[in-house]
Amino acid sequence: MTSDDSSRVDPALLAGNRCTAADYAARHFAWSVQDRVGTITLNRPERKNPLTFDSYAELRDLFSRLKHADDVKAIVVAGAGDNFCSGGDVHEIIGPLVRLKAPELLMFTRMTGDLVKAMRHCPQPVVAAIDGVCAGAGAIIAMASDLRVGTLRSKTAFLFNRVGLAGCDMGACAMLPRIIGQGRASELLYTGRSMSGDEAQQWGFFNRVCAPEAVLQDAQSLAREIANGPTFANGITKTMLHQEWDMGIDQAIEAEAQAQALCMLTEDFSRAYHAFVEKRRPTFEGN
Amino acid sequence: MTSDDSSRVDPALLAGNRCTAADYAARHFAWSVQDRVGTITLNRPERKNPLTFDSYAELRDLFSRLKHADDVKAIVVAGAGDNFCSGGDVHEIIGPLVRLKAPELLMFTRMTGDLVKAMRHCPQPVVAAIDGVCAGAGAIIAMASDLRVGTLRSKTAFLFNRVGLAGCDMGACAMLPRIIGQGRASELLYTGRSMSGDEAQQWGFFNRVCAPEAVLQDAQSLAREIANGPTFANGITKTMLHQEWDMGIDQAIEAEAQAQALCMLTEDFSRAYHAFVEKRRPTFEGN
Amino acid sequence: MTSDDSSRVDPALLAGNRCTAADYAARHFAWSVQDRVGTITLNRPERKNPLTFDSYAELRDLFSRLKHADDVKAIVVAGAGDNFCSGGDVHEIIGPLVRLKAPELLMFTRMTGDLVKAMRHCPQPVVAAIDGVCAGAGAIIAMASDLRVGTLRSKTAFLFNRVGLAGCDMGACAMLPRIIGQGRASELLYTGRSMSGDEAQQWGFFNRVCAPEAVLQDAQSLAREIANGPTFANGITKTMLHQEWDMGIDQAIEAEAQAQALCMLTEDFSRAYHAFVEKRRPTFEGN
Repeated sequence: MTSDDSSRVDPALLAGNRCTAADYAARHFAWSVQDRVGTITLNRPERKNPLTFDSYAELRDLFSRLKHADDVKAIVVAGAGDNFCSGGDVHEIIGPLVRLKAPELLMFTRMTGDLVKAMRHCPQPVVAAIDGVCAGAGAIIAMASDLRVGTLRSKTAFLFNRVGLAGCDMGACAMLPRIIGQGRASELLYTGRSMSGDEAQQWGFFNRVCAPEAVLQDAQSLAREIANGPTFANGITKTMLHQEWDMGIDQAIEAEAQAQALCMLTEDFSRAYHAFVEKRRPTFEGN
Repeated sequence: MTSDDSSRVDPALLAGNRCTAADYAARHFAWSVQDRVGTITLNRPERKNPLTFDSYAELRDLFSRLKHADDVKAIVVAGAGDNFCSGGDVHEIIGPLVRLKAPELLMFTRMTGDLVKAMRHCPQPVVAAIDGVCAGAGAIIAMASDLRVGTLRSKTAFLFNRVGLAGCDMGACAMLPRIIGQGRASELLYTGRSMSGDEAQQWGFFNRVCAPEAVLQDAQSLAREIANGPTFANGITKTMLHQEWDMGIDQAIEAEAQAQALCMLTEDFSRAYHAFVEKRRPTFEGN
Repeated sequence: MTSDDSSRVDPALLAGNRCTAADYAARHFAWSVQDRVGTITLNRPERKNPLTFDSYAELRDLFSRLKHADDVKAIVVAGAGDNFCSGGDVHEIIGPLVRLKAPELLMFTRMTGDLVKAMRHCPQPVVAAIDGVCAGAGAIIAMASDLRVGTLRSKTAFLFNRVGLAGCDMGACAMLPRIIGQGRASELLYTGRSMSGDEAQQWGFFNRVCAPEAVLQDAQSLAREIANGPTFANGITKTMLHQEWDMGIDQAIEAEAQAQALCMLTEDFSRAYHAFVEKRRPTFEGN
């Protein structure tokens, strides 16, 4: 910062920090963007959409890219066919893992953790559309989303202990208890049993349930509604939900005072006010 | 502290720290005290009880005063007419805000945050009586209360993103997820949609629901029950719920060991024991 | 650690850290072990199984011993007769406490807190079987368990304020809000009222409800299922649920990456993989 206050910052200065995502060509899943809503579709339906080393890494990289993309304002994650995701492929992931040593294993668990971190650090709210099997890393991706639309027939299983592992996978011991409560989360993590669609709705894991044929559209409709809102402010909401996770109440209130004052300086705030006065719906532009 | 252990502390020494609240003359809302229960009534029913700069500041000051008042032991917050509170007045608050600069905006968001801090730092449990519209800052006041009695027809909306702002207002991203769960809170904050009275009850936002004509009395009755309990201990409960918000379990257990040992030295503990032995109800005195 | 990588660690080196629990002879409650599930039965049914100074201390010591025991893999806590536990005995605990001074009171509250710490620090998941009265310290023991099986007729009361004390007892202000939500926990702690079996189920305090005559067997069956799982990994799950209580999400994800990598080096992980490939159920050995 210089003392030259007559100059205005050239918007192009930050161009290097920005990128687009609509033109991204995905290799290990399907990716499409419509109405500024990006949809990730895990698409190996014949195997219930398992994850592989490659799809883990590419998902992490796409979410990292989305952090800087300004053409996508909300994200949907779905599975092809009648299932969400069966988790880490037994043959392509579990098999190799049992032969690895500590440094490589940590490299793997950090990669999967980095996917969740990237999902939590991008400004776009993420809506999962969950039907059928939602297991292991699939259940984690659902949990790490901001919102979840599901079906009654879906089965969400944090089945790590069924494969000899701990329930602490990719943040599950931190995040799941805050969504469905400590007692219910403990049961799912200690037993690996499935949470039914009905339980998922009653326990607050699902935000809503709908018919299987409607779940993707419903998730996209919810994502579109959010993308049409004040997207800069939405990104701040997401950041603060993350920042305040382990903050005291007094500190959280000061943090929010600063963050909200920032949002009050946006044009979107002014647009909403003038639209209200003129009795019309505001059109937000995310700035 | 001196080594003179023969002297007892003169109770008058702390008189300067104490004050009364029953005699407070409110200007921007109604205030009355009965049976040591203070009732705040937001009373601009023709506008659904919006907040103004003045009422924000006075609410903050009254709750700050209640921290030191020993004649009020529980608080009810209600709205006149058939609504709780419509939030910050569009013309008297939002309009001016869109023209302010950063320092003034931060002054405003800190003032509103200070209201929530004052609600959390006074020793009296706060019971909100919620009917009709409960929106924006009104929803925050409901959330920042300790307990909530509501009606099925009520609509509670954290509608900040509808006016171009973020959901992080006055502690909402910290507190709301702990009351109704991270997923449900996320939906309300990202979409600004209303939570129905039925949802509020099922999700644990309301402690109970009752008929509109009974909601104020029911809240006052609950507050009176609490005010008739061991009020020093109740204040410690409130302090510890606040202190332990972001503490580890082991630290919380040590903190509670100290706090409860302190309560065991009160006469109220002894009163309860003797009442039990004599098979009668105890009369607590808050010391 | 030396550079001599040809030597393997002698398993006997850690023998001093290990102990057994199945042979423990309890004095102030009943203790039995079957199928590697240890069952604690509070057994003064004529008084609804109250706790005494002696039983508090012995429970603390048994849970501390279980931390190092390798012959018990899950624990059930139950009450004899038709009640779980009525809490601290009025005559044997409350009476003496009202006459104690600060240092002795803190010694007592730390002892009770140490029971909860020991329950949270042993690697075995704890399942409470709750029927009838579950009050005061009894409610705390239920809360401090990992899982809870209850009956509809049970009544769980954090009744501390009824005896003139604060709700902050043995970690209640920290733990109860995370299980049933901040609003519901606040009501129970400020009023001391009973939570019904129906509420306990709906609010996520109970993991399941069953008939009174089946509650102990159901809890033991759930404990046996867990004991037959990968017990080393289960202990890591319990440790991480504890460690991540007040961690940020990013830190929790890194902590889980390390903990899960450790679990991937166990034979149980390999056993599960090979069993899956061979289409049979895995037999876990806890290593």
